[in-house]
Amino acid sequence: MIMPFSFELRSVDPSGARRGLLETDHGPVETPAFMPVGTQGTVKTLSVRDLEEIGVRIVLSNTYHLYLRPGHKLLEEAGGIHRFMGWNRPVLTDSGGYQVLSLADLNRIENEGVEFKSHLDGSTHLFTPESVVETQLSIGADIMMVLDECTDYPCDRGSAEKAVARTALWAGRSLASRGARVTRGGYERVLFGIVQGSVYPDLRERSARDLVDLDFPGYAIGGLSVGEPKSDTLEMIEYTARLLPENKPRYLMGVGLPEDIVEAVARGVDLFDCVIPTRNARNGSVFTSRGRLVVRNAAYARDMRPLDPNCGCEVCRTHSRAYLRHLFNAGEVLGPRLATYHSLYFYLHLIAEMRQVIKEGRFLEWRESFYKVYNSIDTGREESV
Amino acid sequence: MIMPFSFELRSVDPSGARRGLLETDHGPVETPAFMPVGTQGTVKTLSVRDLEEIGVRIVLSNTYHLYLRPGHKLLEEAGGIHRFMGWNRPVLTDSGGYQVLSLADLNRIENEGVEFKSHLDGSTHLFTPESVVETQLSIGADIMMVLDECTDYPCDRGSAEKAVARTALWAGRSLASRGARVTRGGYERVLFGIVQGSVYPDLRERSARDLVDLDFPGYAIGGLSVGEPKSDTLEMIEYTARLLPENKPRYLMGVGLPEDIVEAVARGVDLFDCVIPTRNARNGSVFTSRGRLVVRNAAYARDMRPLDPNCGCEVCRTHSRAYLRHLFNAGEVLGPRLATYHSLYFYLHLIAEMRQVIKEGRFLEWRESFYKVYNSIDTGREESV
Repeated sequence: MIMPFSFELRSVDPSGARRGLLETDHGPVETPAFMPVGTQGTVKTLSVRDLEEIGVRIVLSNTYHLYLRPGHKLLEEAGGIHRFMGWNRPVLTDSGGYQVLSLADLNRIENEGVEFKSHLDGSTHLFTPESVVETQLSIGADIMMVLDECTDYPCDRGSAEKAVARTALWAGRSLASRGARVTRGGYERVLFGIVQGSVYPDLRERSARDLVDLDFPGYAIGGLSVGEPKSDTLEMIEYTARLLPENKPRYLMGVGLPEDIVEAVARGVDLFDCVIPTRNARNGSVFTSRGRLVVRNAAYARDMRPLDPNCGCEVCRTHSRAYLRHLFNAGEVLGPRLATYHSLYFYLHLIAEMRQVIKEGRFLEWRESFYKVYNSIDTGREESV
Repeated sequence: MIMPFSFELRSVDPSGARRGLLETDHGPVETPAFMPVGTQGTVKTLSVRDLEEIGVRIVLSNTYHLYLRPGHKLLEEAGGIHRFMGWNRPVLTDSGGYQVLSLADLNRIENEGVEFKSHLDGSTHLFTPESVVETQLSIGADIMMVLDECTDYPCDRGSAEKAVARTALWAGRSLASRGARVTRGGYERVLFGIVQGSVYPDLRERSARDLVDLDFPGYAIGGLSVGEPKSDTLEMIEYTARLLPENKPRYLMGVGLPEDIVEAVARGVDLFDCVIPTRNARNGSVFTSRGRLVVRNAAYARDMRPLDPNCGCEVCRTHSRAYLRHLFNAGEVLGPRLATYHSLYFYLHLIAEMRQVIKEGRFLEWRESFYKVYNSIDTGREESV
């Protein structure tokens, strides 16, 4: 039996923080939820069983990368990304638009679509709103994203306005091509719209109304965390979230640090993805209940405590900072692997804690106590032992 | 209660293959056994839980590497290598002599010891028979190896003779310094001797008699697989093993391919270590029941079968060759990790199978059927699909 995609808003905390439940054919996702980034069909260094253990319920993968390598057609032959990765829980894919603008060599962006050169071999490709839906259908994600025009920061008003208009045009064409829900391979895939508008409230409003008129099963807030001041980020999140329908999931793309997620949850966001926990971990910088810890630093060479004495993950139960520091120092890939495992566990447990305190209606109180502990390591300096 | 190190020979197959049981304070090791190499306090890419799952009972770590980084004193502070790695089963350390000769910049080798320059920073160090015992005691291995002079191939008779004499001298001094059994940190550590003699049967005999006279709890056969023809390797193993006491474990250092292990087991060897399964896996070449498979090759890009359809490991139960090939092709470290997991599983299960058929007295018959299947992939070419 095919389970139609659904979202149920279960409770709203006095702060505005929401708790909900996404249902998909690959299982449920309680929100707020964090999606680790599995760029090339793998969350770097981790196995799918690691992800399950950590409590990951949904992963994000990148259409741009999979399209180029191993190719979406190969993924289709393999029976889709779930079978290819060995991951049986939900997958969300982005549209590839962001990578085209940030990684590839852009030839031209027109109303038709985006022409670019592959960062791998320089070959020329065209992404259109329709083609990226087809590519994502081949990949097999449960949640697909429309092609949008994501603006940089700073972005003049004229460019932001054009991007909003094009994003709306493309969203309409994406929907027109296949509709918002497609059943294939025995499960339902849905398409989310993306709100743009840079840091201009009226453009955010225009974009939100454009998208909401099209009635997507879910909405993303895009074009943030691209360099703008944090106060602008938060203002835009708050402003945009209010314009989106209460009964649809809200996904803030590419954000962020633990404190950014806490603040966005307080502003009514349900879904997150970000490379920060995994990328930083690979560089020897992990997140703990007391803040960031740069375990590759010499200061930890003889520190026999776990990364985070308050953490119950397997790495913290088994290994010391001294061991992790040795692994990084000796160039052993087990270092990035263990650090990634820990940092993702921290993110997943942090967001699970938020779901719990939202349920109990005490998000604001929790947030205060979170910051009190979280700021007790100064990010820039060593932790005093 | 401290469990004294012991070895019990449980049965001998008509072929000469032996089955036994090593007992240590960190648990039992059924022999024949394969020890994965954890050079720097980690079997590259794998967690200690992976090793447990695979069925690893004992790991080897390298004194030379640990001495230089993180330093044996740090390991002692950490409570020894077991606690440092989070590994509760037995550990064997080599003496460092082999690495000094192969990796470091050798200053001089004299009866006193070996002076060398670190391959990391060029600093000068001296290893003596006594100092490497102390270093290994700090590291905390259950089984320590004496400092020996391992010869290259080819090696003229005069040099081989000198190496045999020095190896005997050093073995005597190693024993004199602390004895063959040292209890520290609540568990017993034992010292094994090493037989040298290059490819000269009479020198192998002299060396074996020298060492046996000293009455070590176990003996290694060293100085093989250093470039000599395989027929010489096998002849030396067979000849040397016969000179060693029946009731002591026999450890063939640094060997080898699956077929080398099969042949050495047939010649009465009990313990093995080798970097081949792990190093080859990191380069995309794995061992299967049908031979070697170079999974990084383009031929496997669309091959949806597991690495080894006869294998029950988690990687073969979860992933296709196409997925592994993609990971290697995309430079994802999950590729080396999954390949290493599979290849070690193959080695550990192969040697467990040998223990079983020795028990049943049908090693020779099993060996024939093993080769029939094992040679069905030609190592040099692609498997025909």
